[in-house]
Amino acid sequence: MKIDINVDMGESFGRYVLGEDEALMPYVTSANIATCFHAGDPLVLERTIKWAKKYGVAIGAHIGLPDRQGFGRRQMDISVEELRSDMLYQLGAMDAFLKLQGLKMQHVKPHGILYRMVGEQEKYIDTFLDTIEEYNKDLYIMLHTGCEALKRAEKRGLKTAPEVLIDLGYDKNGNWMLERVKKARSPEEVADRAVKVAKEGKIDTIDGKLIDVNGCTVCIHGDSPNATMVATAVRESLENSGVTVTNLNGYFGQT
Amino acid sequence: MKIDINVDMGESFGRYVLGEDEALMPYVTSANIATCFHAGDPLVLERTIKWAKKYGVAIGAHIGLPDRQGFGRRQMDISVEELRSDMLYQLGAMDAFLKLQGLKMQHVKPHGILYRMVGEQEKYIDTFLDTIEEYNKDLYIMLHTGCEALKRAEKRGLKTAPEVLIDLGYDKNGNWMLERVKKARSPEEVADRAVKVAKEGKIDTIDGKLIDVNGCTVCIHGDSPNATMVATAVRESLENSGVTVTNLNGYFGQT
Amino acid sequence: MKIDINVDMGESFGRYVLGEDEALMPYVTSANIATCFHAGDPLVLERTIKWAKKYGVAIGAHIGLPDRQGFGRRQMDISVEELRSDMLYQLGAMDAFLKLQGLKMQHVKPHGILYRMVGEQEKYIDTFLDTIEEYNKDLYIMLHTGCEALKRAEKRGLKTAPEVLIDLGYDKNGNWMLERVKKARSPEEVADRAVKVAKEGKIDTIDGKLIDVNGCTVCIHGDSPNATMVATAVRESLENSGVTVTNLNGYFGQT
Amino acid sequence: MKIDINVDMGESFGRYVLGEDEALMPYVTSANIATCFHAGDPLVLERTIKWAKKYGVAIGAHIGLPDRQGFGRRQMDISVEELRSDMLYQLGAMDAFLKLQGLKMQHVKPHGILYRMVGEQEKYIDTFLDTIEEYNKDLYIMLHTGCEALKRAEKRGLKTAPEVLIDLGYDKNGNWMLERVKKARSPEEVADRAVKVAKEGKIDTIDGKLIDVNGCTVCIHGDSPNATMVATAVRESLENSGVTVTNLNGYFGQT
Repeated sequence: MKIDINVDMGESFGRYVLGEDEALMPYVTSANIATCFHAGDPLVLERTIKWAKKYGVAIGAHIGLPDRQGFGRRQMDISVEELRSDMLYQLGAMDAFLKLQGLKMQHVKPHGILYRMVGEQEKYIDTFLDTIEEYNKDLYIMLHTGCEALKRAEKRGLKTAPEVLIDLGYDKNGNWMLERVKKARSPEEVADRAVKVAKEGKIDTIDGKLIDVNGCTVCIHGDSPNATMVATAVRESLENSGVTVTNLNGYFGQT
Repeated sequence: MKIDINVDMGESFGRYVLGEDEALMPYVTSANIATCFHAGDPLVLERTIKWAKKYGVAIGAHIGLPDRQGFGRRQMDISVEELRSDMLYQLGAMDAFLKLQGLKMQHVKPHGILYRMVGEQEKYIDTFLDTIEEYNKDLYIMLHTGCEALKRAEKRGLKTAPEVLIDLGYDKNGNWMLERVKKARSPEEVADRAVKVAKEGKIDTIDGKLIDVNGCTVCIHGDSPNATMVATAVRESLENSGVTVTNLNGYFGQT
Repeated sequence: MKIDINVDMGESFGRYVLGEDEALMPYVTSANIATCFHAGDPLVLERTIKWAKKYGVAIGAHIGLPDRQGFGRRQMDISVEELRSDMLYQLGAMDAFLKLQGLKMQHVKPHGILYRMVGEQEKYIDTFLDTIEEYNKDLYIMLHTGCEALKRAEKRGLKTAPEVLIDLGYDKNGNWMLERVKKARSPEEVADRAVKVAKEGKIDTIDGKLIDVNGCTVCIHGDSPNATMVATAVRESLENSGVTVTNLNGYFGQT
Repeated sequence: MKIDINVDMGESFGRYVLGEDEALMPYVTSANIATCFHAGDPLVLERTIKWAKKYGVAIGAHIGLPDRQGFGRRQMDISVEELRSDMLYQLGAMDAFLKLQGLKMQHVKPHGILYRMVGEQEKYIDTFLDTIEEYNKDLYIMLHTGCEALKRAEKRGLKTAPEVLIDLGYDKNGNWMLERVKKARSPEEVADRAVKVAKEGKIDTIDGKLIDVNGCTVCIHGDSPNATMVATAVRESLENSGVTVTNLNGYFGQT
């Protein structure tokens, strides 16, 4: 039994601090680091990559819409050509910093509303997959388990990393619910959900059901008020339950 | 006798068109393409790279300050850490598009006031060179002939591409003068100056002198009103004078 | 018989020039001047206001989405609170410059996709009207003739300025069609349409019909390649046809 | 004996929270609210103005350079025309929100490096004063006590509000020292300094001296880690010492 723990990081911007990135690193196996469109800046990006390296955390590009004021959460009707060039720009920018650290990008995860746009909206799915396939076939595509983009990615033979959002609510159909203001969930509750995902492939819903989910990674939101406590609890509970916590390469046996 | 012709390109931004990039390509051997900080956007960047490829023009990163409104021309007191991370971000972003076209970046040229900051200001010179050396030692560093940064680059064994600004005025000390509103210079005048640089290593000054300049490349500003006519005249005059017009790799015999 | 001629202006940004604002001024009675979210910058804003004053052209705020790269043309799912505060910010900013020139704002016109959002989309219409009503009831609201927002504005007793887009195509239902790349329409054709709107209240459609339109102002797009020629022809044709060309206050007899 | 307490507010931006604005309001008499160039956004601006109104705090425009990433702290070589139009744009934008709340702007205070640029640098001082004089002569100009701009403002008959930075270090010449990372100073220490400024017109220096300062207002930095505790202590100490804490209009007897 194995699972990856992923957290969004590198979201600070200039004077603005967001998240406790370095404190979280010891508990995380994959860091989704913002590539400076919706959040982050080049200084923050490099600093966060260095932290990830120091703690042995695998690195993914957390790509976003060009909307800092909206934190990449406001749907924008960009063209598919814009999606493609905005993706390449961000992926390349991150790769420059990774190259200097002797590291390789492990995965790509879209942020905010882009997560839904390229995961679920017909207009964008194929361009998203085309761009990753063309840029770097070795990248794991991290999206919500069961979404249309992951299905198509698998058909294409691309690497996929289906994730479960263990600190968000689910409805009975397996849809997760966005919470603009993050609730401070009990670390134990989130940790229990992580163990259930890893060991049983199940998650509870807001109406008290238990549904199947298939995920190789669980996401903890780094900008919740008690993120570090949650991450600590999740990591410990998983290890105490006999689950191996490992990054995506470890999960898929490609160390 | 050989010379490279370089032109700034890819400066359009969204709805805003600047320069006649495709029309200029046939006359140019090195394109300095804006990397979207001071000018350009990812769509423009990719389109301009494709044009350069189509016309066999070598490509350089035209890096700038993060100031679109000021077009990278307003000195900003950035830290050296910011210079480094802003450079890496831009270089990497361009490399993503080049990778997809099977191309390699030939050179890096700083834009606007950054040209002076990293070329002449003590605070920035070494960080600029360190960053290029660390990121990609094969890049030619294109800066004004005789500037301090080029001298140090040569001492380090880095590749240098000293340039002469044949459409700007020079004083008797070899200093060039910025013109915010580009004059429409006579194509013949600029072409004559290009030939004189290539064949004799000399340029005329605003007070009627002739001074020595050592340049492997001449710059034509693509945003002057008659840029295409100037480029045509320069290219033809050089070739008619028996000068081989070639990109930097050709100039230095590294095709 | 009277009509107002309105043109978008002040869209230049830093180094980027867009439109021939000063050349157009003599032919225009109402200038929609960009308030620096989708286009323009504070220097351009002040300069354009001074030109309008010099030529006696009435001034309106051309408000837009906070998306310069997309030129305010990409729908963004902003909240109604964001719409309100973005509007107030832009209106106030323009009023500072008008105050110094001893001028009053005549109208407000939303730009690009915001024109559709606040004119037609249920989510935004009432907030748009509330904000204008609260900020300045004397402002004319310039939107497309017949749109839902104008209907509601009239019910509220707000001042409305229904417009006809004489250089764009119409379908038989009175819907206009956006053209991303502006066609260079024949000045005579556009001028004839202007006269027909002013004298007969009619416009031709792309399928050759003639439909009723009720407009107190006709819009000429200032960023088409031959905008000045079009504006000249429109103004002359209207005056030669006995139509009084006047701004909105003149049109509604409130000089 | 009277004194004003001013704090920078409204610096949050989109998802990024900075400062505990509402918690600070009860202890403050003048709020310097960011006008969305270096910090803040229109939603934050309106919200902060409403808080100030609720707590009876006078409002000033905290104007800044157009550099969010640098938080307005990186000197930019803007032209005086840009300074003027950037100022007017920001002042007008804030006035729109104040108008809707039935409030008047009390003062203007430049933020970050702009504080030094317009307070001390010859290039900018007169344009700064010209712009305020032209826009609104009733505004108090809040700058560091003794700076050149305040001297000239007084000669012009403009309203001045010299301030003392009671949570920063001073050298023996009365120069204050910027601390990029705010120290968490002891609330008692800062409170004692406030009382000494208000009652004796003196402040201690880093080398243990006591120098004269003439200030009608003391500044507490709202982004220090313990800002609310500091503000509470300052307010209480002042009132317990018999000092009347009042805004600028109260200070100068213009209620």
